[in-house]
Amino acid sequence: MRAVIKVGVLGARGRMGSEAVRAVGEAPDAELVAEINREDSLSALVDAGAQVAVDLTHPDSVLGNIEFCVANGIHVVVGTSGLGPDELDTVRSRLAAEPEVGVIVAPNFAIGAVLSMRFAELAAKHFESAEIVELHHPKKADAPSGTAARTAQVIGKAREQAQLDPMPDATTKELDGARGAEVDGVRVHSVRMAGLVAHQEVLFGTEGESFTIRHDSYDRRSFMPGVLLCVREIGGRPGLTVGLDALLGI
Amino acid sequence: MRAVIKVGVLGARGRMGSEAVRAVGEAPDAELVAEINREDSLSALVDAGAQVAVDLTHPDSVLGNIEFCVANGIHVVVGTSGLGPDELDTVRSRLAAEPEVGVIVAPNFAIGAVLSMRFAELAAKHFESAEIVELHHPKKADAPSGTAARTAQVIGKAREQAQLDPMPDATTKELDGARGAEVDGVRVHSVRMAGLVAHQEVLFGTEGESFTIRHDSYDRRSFMPGVLLCVREIGGRPGLTVGLDALLGI
Amino acid sequence: MRAVIKVGVLGARGRMGSEAVRAVGEAPDAELVAEINREDSLSALVDAGAQVAVDLTHPDSVLGNIEFCVANGIHVVVGTSGLGPDELDTVRSRLAAEPEVGVIVAPNFAIGAVLSMRFAELAAKHFESAEIVELHHPKKADAPSGTAARTAQVIGKAREQAQLDPMPDATTKELDGARGAEVDGVRVHSVRMAGLVAHQEVLFGTEGESFTIRHDSYDRRSFMPGVLLCVREIGGRPGLTVGLDALLGI
Amino acid sequence: MRAVIKVGVLGARGRMGSEAVRAVGEAPDAELVAEINREDSLSALVDAGAQVAVDLTHPDSVLGNIEFCVANGIHVVVGTSGLGPDELDTVRSRLAAEPEVGVIVAPNFAIGAVLSMRFAELAAKHFESAEIVELHHPKKADAPSGTAARTAQVIGKAREQAQLDPMPDATTKELDGARGAEVDGVRVHSVRMAGLVAHQEVLFGTEGESFTIRHDSYDRRSFMPGVLLCVREIGGRPGLTVGLDALLGI
Repeated sequence: MRAVIKVGVLGARGRMGSEAVRAVGEAPDAELVAEINREDSLSALVDAGAQVAVDLTHPDSVLGNIEFCVANGIHVVVGTSGLGPDELDTVRSRLAAEPEVGVIVAPNFAIGAVLSMRFAELAAKHFESAEIVELHHPKKADAPSGTAARTAQVIGKAREQAQLDPMPDATTKELDGARGAEVDGVRVHSVRMAGLVAHQEVLFGTEGESFTIRHDSYDRRSFMPGVLLCVREIGGRPGLTVGLDALLGI
Repeated sequence: MRAVIKVGVLGARGRMGSEAVRAVGEAPDAELVAEINREDSLSALVDAGAQVAVDLTHPDSVLGNIEFCVANGIHVVVGTSGLGPDELDTVRSRLAAEPEVGVIVAPNFAIGAVLSMRFAELAAKHFESAEIVELHHPKKADAPSGTAARTAQVIGKAREQAQLDPMPDATTKELDGARGAEVDGVRVHSVRMAGLVAHQEVLFGTEGESFTIRHDSYDRRSFMPGVLLCVREIGGRPGLTVGLDALLGI
Repeated sequence: MRAVIKVGVLGARGRMGSEAVRAVGEAPDAELVAEINREDSLSALVDAGAQVAVDLTHPDSVLGNIEFCVANGIHVVVGTSGLGPDELDTVRSRLAAEPEVGVIVAPNFAIGAVLSMRFAELAAKHFESAEIVELHHPKKADAPSGTAARTAQVIGKAREQAQLDPMPDATTKELDGARGAEVDGVRVHSVRMAGLVAHQEVLFGTEGESFTIRHDSYDRRSFMPGVLLCVREIGGRPGLTVGLDALLGI
Repeated sequence: MRAVIKVGVLGARGRMGSEAVRAVGEAPDAELVAEINREDSLSALVDAGAQVAVDLTHPDSVLGNIEFCVANGIHVVVGTSGLGPDELDTVRSRLAAEPEVGVIVAPNFAIGAVLSMRFAELAAKHFESAEIVELHHPKKADAPSGTAARTAQVIGKAREQAQLDPMPDATTKELDGARGAEVDGVRVHSVRMAGLVAHQEVLFGTEGESFTIRHDSYDRRSFMPGVLLCVREIGGRPGLTVGLDALLGI
């Protein structure tokens, strides 16, 4: 019989945290042993015997939380894009003292988003053209989305490494903005529309064929399979892991 | 038994003309009786007993061709977007003298494109948001495409008539061009990509739903059903008809 | 100044009803004056001065509710597909006695769905081929969906009226079910998938081009613009109206 | 300077062969040195100094052609799905005697199709649901397409290896065929439509998100980048390689 993993959630009342509480509670191979909020002491994790902590708090508190957990032999799954190189170095040095503990830092738990980006990277060198169309709800402040910009960057880098020619484009008469924004040589188009949530199409084309990778994210629940994947895998991954890619086997 | 319609093609050696020659030749209810090129006399149409002339020549010669045909009681189907208001008035005055003759001027014979634009116009007032993504081969010089710009215009006009609020859009941080070009208040995004031909998506959205009209045009043959529709209908449509819409019953 | 419309919602605690309560409450030109549930008397509608009743109760109670409202001079918007020809006749006879009252019966309030079906009907005769792919959440019991089946029927009927040839299909070797279900000569394919809600693509094709109408419905809120449209229009539409089409101006 | 690769095309007058002749002729790093048809002797390859032979002939002649080329130290790129296990063993034994020669057997040269299948395989274990919609021209005899069936098989196998639960599907009332054909537990839907060429969507879904891989193939030219990739890589790949996957680095 597979042992059940004891999990504590930090930031349990937050939007992501409350979803994680629900998801861990429903998973047959995990047990929710602690719900920690801002006013609670981290020692509750130790008291409850948590094996894995899922940190869905603010960037400000993440580093302290990690240090506490590592020192107490608790694996940590962190969902934030707010850790810089210096902070990751700090995490690594703490982990050096606890070689059996694992920390996974995942800027994006949506498996579909991570697959999109990785497949785009792998496909990029095989096509003459690549563009991105991302579509989001109209309350979004930034255009393009962070995911679209990062996807463009990995495509741009893959094309450069493969020494591809610039993409063909005979546009000579353009209404301002029609051809989108340019990120590392890749055109990115941002649609903002009532009714949508978060969607992205990466389009590739070469003479006679096109190839498209589309990801549709409808709500926060889409992050939970990624969170659970980390919870399940972290026991076998001591040290620091950045990004879900490694866990997805791609 | 339905009578066969005798058709002459003007500009028969051109790219569109040669397709029309093939299409008329294959249609069970039409007979190709004349292929006219630049060096040929228009009188061959009369000699051959043509009932309908399909003019796929250059804008320069269209008006003269129409005048000749109308004077000789031959209906004319014209595939050009190059006739201005003055020239259309000239056509009307010629037709006044020949009340049984019909002239159809169609800037676009692709039925799918015409349906796209008309349906977009009808749908526009029912949605908070509308944007257009058009995708073409990379040899295209203009962005956005003429069809996309016209579609944006009819959407913008329909929204104005329905006194809709401006579309919701909270973008405050935009990489230049990400949100596309603006045509009459409607954002238009132009993708240019090897392998593609001519494609357009009109996206509409409102709280909880989205609605999309997509047209894919793969080659010149897509214009032929529209040409044949005109050939078949023109006998019952004396006077000047502009655009395929009326014939499509929408 | 435009007068505010006084609205009562029947079935106010139900899934659709509670959305309608919210939507009417937020609309600038409507006022929610009564929330009626199973245990409440309909006379509350009269007491509150409701001008329009929105009935989102069960098929069993709809007819009685309509009769009460009509007798009291209250317009009724009914969201059910459960009224048969006999019951509609009953509604008509009640309305005969109250010529200024309107009843709108709408099997589907999603404007995108209604547009999809109507546009599909208008487009059908212009294409050689038509098929439907509908995609829903995996808890759905019936395949194809009711909307897809009805869409296939209107396409089939439009093709028949236009005396189109059967669709081209050279399939001679088929794995059972691959070509989908057949509804009035139109193939319908049903995808059931975790993460999806309710989506439908109507695909049309002819030599050289294809034309697609797609509707995505993400949640119950997508029905509210249709409900509000009925509330706003019903004052000008005495008698019985079936379906949203007439109100959409298509 | 990169040396130019001397290439001979077998089946040079065929549909695929004539495209290959054109593609090799246009490639800056390849030189077409021989065009071989049925009536020609293979010795022309040797006389012309061909380093690589591209075999686009019939399954009947492929094995003999490979044997001749291997014996003469010429690499062979073979585009056929008609070689069975026994014939591949024969190729291996011939290659054993010529350890520097390479043979690549590719059932599908369309890079987009190969990427689709491989990415589908990699993604499969991460989603609760997976289905395939393939869309082809109406002259196609088999449904589903060979590519769709193979894609379903690799998905089914990946799900089995990951010990996934069966896909959720509450369908209890199905019009015959609506839910498609079943291939290794994966539903496959086949659309046949005038105007289309060859298209495939692999859809994955899990709570809150969906993920789609789409490949559109418009014409035979889409196979040429795959052919050229093989021509360029075969010098560094002695022995037998089956499928383009290895060369795509995925």
